[in-house]
Amino acid sequence: MDKGKILLAVTGFHPQHWRELLAADREVVLEPDGASDPSITYAVVWKQKPNILASLPNLRAIFSIGAGVDHIFTDPGLPDVPIVRVVADNLTQYMTEYVVWRVLDHHRQGMFYRALQPKKMWREAQQRPAGDISVGIMGLGHLGRAAASVLLSLGFAVNGWSRTDRPMQGVSTYVGEAGLIPFLNATDILVVLLPLTPQTQGIINYGLLKELRRHNGLGGAVLINAGRGRLQKDADILRALDDGTLKEASLDVFEVEPLPKTSPLWSHPKLFVTPHAAATSDPEHLVPIMLRQMAAFERGEKLDNLVDREAGY
Amino acid sequence: MDKGKILLAVTGFHPQHWRELLAADREVVLEPDGASDPSITYAVVWKQKPNILASLPNLRAIFSIGAGVDHIFTDPGLPDVPIVRVVADNLTQYMTEYVVWRVLDHHRQGMFYRALQPKKMWREAQQRPAGDISVGIMGLGHLGRAAASVLLSLGFAVNGWSRTDRPMQGVSTYVGEAGLIPFLNATDILVVLLPLTPQTQGIINYGLLKELRRHNGLGGAVLINAGRGRLQKDADILRALDDGTLKEASLDVFEVEPLPKTSPLWSHPKLFVTPHAAATSDPEHLVPIMLRQMAAFERGEKLDNLVDREAGY
Repeated sequence: MDKGKILLAVTGFHPQHWRELLAADREVVLEPDGASDPSITYAVVWKQKPNILASLPNLRAIFSIGAGVDHIFTDPGLPDVPIVRVVADNLTQYMTEYVVWRVLDHHRQGMFYRALQPKKMWREAQQRPAGDISVGIMGLGHLGRAAASVLLSLGFAVNGWSRTDRPMQGVSTYVGEAGLIPFLNATDILVVLLPLTPQTQGIINYGLLKELRRHNGLGGAVLINAGRGRLQKDADILRALDDGTLKEASLDVFEVEPLPKTSPLWSHPKLFVTPHAAATSDPEHLVPIMLRQMAAFERGEKLDNLVDREAGY
Repeated sequence: MDKGKILLAVTGFHPQHWRELLAADREVVLEPDGASDPSITYAVVWKQKPNILASLPNLRAIFSIGAGVDHIFTDPGLPDVPIVRVVADNLTQYMTEYVVWRVLDHHRQGMFYRALQPKKMWREAQQRPAGDISVGIMGLGHLGRAAASVLLSLGFAVNGWSRTDRPMQGVSTYVGEAGLIPFLNATDILVVLLPLTPQTQGIINYGLLKELRRHNGLGGAVLINAGRGRLQKDADILRALDDGTLKEASLDVFEVEPLPKTSPLWSHPKLFVTPHAAATSDPEHLVPIMLRQMAAFERGEKLDNLVDREAGY
């Protein structure tokens, strides 16, 4: 098979570094060029413009630049070719760091101590052992499992919830719709790592947060969302923080990004905001993985980490 | 052997809960009672008053309530009996949490994001992978090794420095005086878990901090002290933070505790203060361990975790 040409079609990313790294191995065309080009066989995309992929007569596979692929499905002219999700140690490691960092900051009462320091108050927070705290991870894919493993080594009790059964040593797993309420009832710190699909959109709402366990050694329930912003209802989180349904939260993602300056989330004292920075796609790590997959595909091997179109992730 | 009586001699702790738990198994005398009492065979102490232990004719062992034992040696009349350091999973776990929490907060640019949030600024910090950052742990005893193990699982490079050689899989170890400068030169985030002895007092001074590596992906060198306050020179840390020798620091311990309200450390924007709360001695966990050791000792078994008087820890 010939060495296929790549269309790079990204929005909201600076494409230059990706282009240079991809171009070291194959020809790269940067969108808006490349429409209808019969020599293009791969698309590397992030929120590609609608219908551009449909115009490519010989497209053989689509590669997503980030861990999520929901942005690909908004294209009404999405061609029926394999979609590859990026799975990189690097991304997994960043996400694990973020999750463990935020869990520890809530567990070790970081907000309490940061509020005391300007008042020069020497006062110890009540501190429970990690084993008394249940961290519940929604989404037990690559990212969820990697985070669970470090949380277990720190001594936390870990629950997991997923659409299909994904057993994991040391983790209490709950499955599907029937498992959701029992999962929440047994969870003090909720970590959201779900894919965004029509089924999960808006799932993190006030009613769901109400089900979390809050009579615990932490002094309340905590939410950490490092998945996708549209999994959550920003307004519901605000309401839950205000009425004590949530004690604290860490959000890396929001319904609208960048988070508008007018959003009251910015200034909530119980909320820690990061700018969708939990696990940034680093072209230095991801491009070699993509190029290796293209070369293997052209040798007749299978593509790894294919997206299930039916499930939407 | 008879079931020996315990003298509980503590300063700066509320003794009541310790007393109740110890008394469930053996007779307990609370200092200032008990001087010269021949039926007392054990002392459970924290900063005991000078010479009280010397007055006990049949004292057979001293148990420290905390992980450190430096407080015991300030007693000029310290009798020549075995001193037992408390080693408890519980304490080790708390300390590991604290170290990993603080390392991640500096590595993931927590101070940067907390400064941006009130300004409603959506801006990503430069983020390097954990493998590019070397965490150097001073003190490779129980606590240092447990923290190193979780840091390794997060992907950090880990260095260790200790007085005697303590090899550990995956950790680059440096030994004694000759190893100190090479250890510091290879370290971005310095974690201090040393015992306080005449040799280590004041070791964390400006000259030592100057030797840390600061041309790194973090944007500077970082200090985390969870050992003892008198290991450090508070004023040197302030100077180092002010002139950029240190980018940031987390201190759980101080030369004088509680940290006086007049200390400029409280209000330094690059310093995170906790009130000697990294690993709190929890009587519910520690008393059963002490009582088990006393019973074993009376059956003729050896005491575990004995302090080396020569080394002072």
